[in-house]
Amino acid sequence: MKTNIPFTLDTKKSISALGETALIKQIKIWLGKTNPRSPFGIGDDCAVLPASKTSQLVTVDPIIYGRHFDQSVTAEQAGSKLLKRNISDIAAMGGKPTYCVISLSLDSHVKLSWLKSFYTGLRKTAEKYFILIVGGDIAETKGACSATLTLLGKTASKRFLTRHSAKPNDFIFVTGKLGLSLQSGHHYSFTPRLNEALWISKQTAVNSLMDLSDGLAKDINCLVPKKAVACIYSDKLPLRSKASIKEALCDGEDYELLFTVSNKTNPEHFKSRWKKKFPNVELSLIGHMCPQGKRPSNALNLSAFQGYEHLSKQ
Amino acid sequence: MKTNIPFTLDTKKSISALGETALIKQIKIWLGKTNPRSPFGIGDDCAVLPASKTSQLVTVDPIIYGRHFDQSVTAEQAGSKLLKRNISDIAAMGGKPTYCVISLSLDSHVKLSWLKSFYTGLRKTAEKYFILIVGGDIAETKGACSATLTLLGKTASKRFLTRHSAKPNDFIFVTGKLGLSLQSGHHYSFTPRLNEALWISKQTAVNSLMDLSDGLAKDINCLVPKKAVACIYSDKLPLRSKASIKEALCDGEDYELLFTVSNKTNPEHFKSRWKKKFPNVELSLIGHMCPQGKRPSNALNLSAFQGYEHLSKQ
Repeated sequence: MKTNIPFTLDTKKSISALGETALIKQIKIWLGKTNPRSPFGIGDDCAVLPASKTSQLVTVDPIIYGRHFDQSVTAEQAGSKLLKRNISDIAAMGGKPTYCVISLSLDSHVKLSWLKSFYTGLRKTAEKYFILIVGGDIAETKGACSATLTLLGKTASKRFLTRHSAKPNDFIFVTGKLGLSLQSGHHYSFTPRLNEALWISKQTAVNSLMDLSDGLAKDINCLVPKKAVACIYSDKLPLRSKASIKEALCDGEDYELLFTVSNKTNPEHFKSRWKKKFPNVELSLIGHMCPQGKRPSNALNLSAFQGYEHLSKQ
Repeated sequence: MKTNIPFTLDTKKSISALGETALIKQIKIWLGKTNPRSPFGIGDDCAVLPASKTSQLVTVDPIIYGRHFDQSVTAEQAGSKLLKRNISDIAAMGGKPTYCVISLSLDSHVKLSWLKSFYTGLRKTAEKYFILIVGGDIAETKGACSATLTLLGKTASKRFLTRHSAKPNDFIFVTGKLGLSLQSGHHYSFTPRLNEALWISKQTAVNSLMDLSDGLAKDINCLVPKKAVACIYSDKLPLRSKASIKEALCDGEDYELLFTVSNKTNPEHFKSRWKKKFPNVELSLIGHMCPQGKRPSNALNLSAFQGYEHLSKQ
């Protein structure tokens, strides 16, 4: 039976059977054209990248076995997820991804076949989004199967959107469905909202943008402007099938876009333009940024909900 | 007694006592001016970097507790080492470091005081080399205390040096002393050869350049041109105090520069120019790239020596 467990006790099938130099040669083959020739790709002390005319973006996110993926996920899905969760961060600024480097922490018992499939997932996703994989590092770490990816990007125009420019009374929009990402497999099967974010970043009425990774109830705090409070209505939340309100608010890894739009905009008009552009991606108006002390009684008390906490408090 | 062990069983003193949001706030304070305001530093989905007029460089290297440092090294030294080993890679192309992002994998029992000192080491080193620390990620990982740093750089001029342009008959030079890096503390106290590499990259007679991280005997293979073989002489090796020939050839983490110079150059003239420029940094002519089949009998048989192997063969 085929298993997704990354480790093997059969040393002939493990990465240690190859050793580092041969393994790097293999990785170059697995990556194909997504890895340009050295020094523009793997094979020197650094990778050399062309000059960039516009502002650049940089983000870093890992995936760790036992934390961001487990044996319910294939190696190819894990590799794809690693790149997509970083793409989602580039999207969240209204940018386009360009180049990445990958640092692997692997136990010597990691299966060569697992790693090959992991790189297949990376390569296919890189090809899809025109990303070049230009370098990396491998370190042996007892018990580990994890990878950290740093992704560079460029701003699509002079304008990029941040988390820090929402205005009081802005409308709050969210794409897609929320909650139960882990249970539904959405956490690895999702499509980063790159095109949607590019369109959003061109709309001058949009004031702020981010992607949802730690749950709406936690993440929305990053957008709330001074002297305001986020008012979100439970009946407006786009619940994933079988998800509760709490799961839609607190579950991590939605990888959807959360953004605010000036209250001078007609939200129905905004939504109808969206629908024409992205007929298959749901867009929900879930609330607005109220001036402090003016939260309507039917708005959710978000402080009662906790999002995903990266460091478990004890 | 003060200890360098990163972990504590006293949860009040561990990073988990703070939780992620408060910890990121702390990190921003610890980094001071080396972390610019969001979105140019920590605090958004990506960091925004200015456009770059010249080619850029990118490299990634981790440090892992139990592998790249242990309790003989203070947290501040560990933080400094993480940045310096990446700076050494930027130097090895003749570049200047610019921006970095850091991804942490930490057990929830990591001491807050340890992490503070680690960031002090990072900050001081970043200040010294005019590097901005613009972003990162924290993931809780059982038993781990490791950090992966991705460093960007720029080429100082249109010229950058690679590992792939040495010519047959080139002279082989190395800076500093070799061997016993771990035993002598050199692996954390070293100064990356940034200024020296910038000077080297401006010398048109220099054909190739790299930094030594896995031991001369292994690393030199990256420079050897086709139809040539590296001829190195044991009496020319700059041994660190108490180091044997084998240790100078095989020990890792020298962080010295290895480069080749056209045989049309007068090596003594080259060395005297070096001495004028860098009176405190030793430069040794250790051999040359012989045409294949013409290795002098007194040259070392390098294939008999193994450098540092990142993946233990079993």
